[in-house]
Amino acid sequence: MTATSYKVTGMSCEHCVNAVIAELRRADGVSAVTVDLVPDGLSLVTVTSAHPLPDAVVSAALDEAGDYRIGGA
Amino acid sequence: MTATSYKVTGMSCEHCVNAVIAELRRADGVSAVTVDLVPDGLSLVTVTSAHPLPDAVVSAALDEAGDYRIGGA
Repeated sequence: MTATSYKVTGMSCEHCVNAVIAELRRADGVSAVTVDLVPDGLSLVTVTSAHPLPDAVVSAALDEAGDYRIGGA
Repeated sequence: MTATSYKVTGMSCEHCVNAVIAELRRADGVSAVTVDLVPDGLSLVTVTSAHPLPDAVVSAALDEAGDYRIGGA
């Protein structure tokens, strides 16, 4: 089991949070997703999964959820 | 048929737009809902309906969609 956090741009509301959680939970091996929403900045998205997810899978899920992007340091 | 516009606070993204449209379309007699999204200000929500909707119905739908409020002049 591994937990990885991503700083994500563009999330502005609870609908965004719900969409991101729903998409990431669909990824293979994901058991939990939590989001610390920062509407005007970088939201912290933490994914717990059986194995680390490829970045491309995370990026695709964020894009599908609403055009969100991994960004920031 | 009547069309009424409301200036609504708190809508920040396309998910908000979709939620507001979905809730207002459920109101009795509503045939169309359009939204001009202004993420950091007053979004313009226009409802076309057979008869004017009571303000309480509109307010309740906005609240249900995501805690949005009619505001501004």
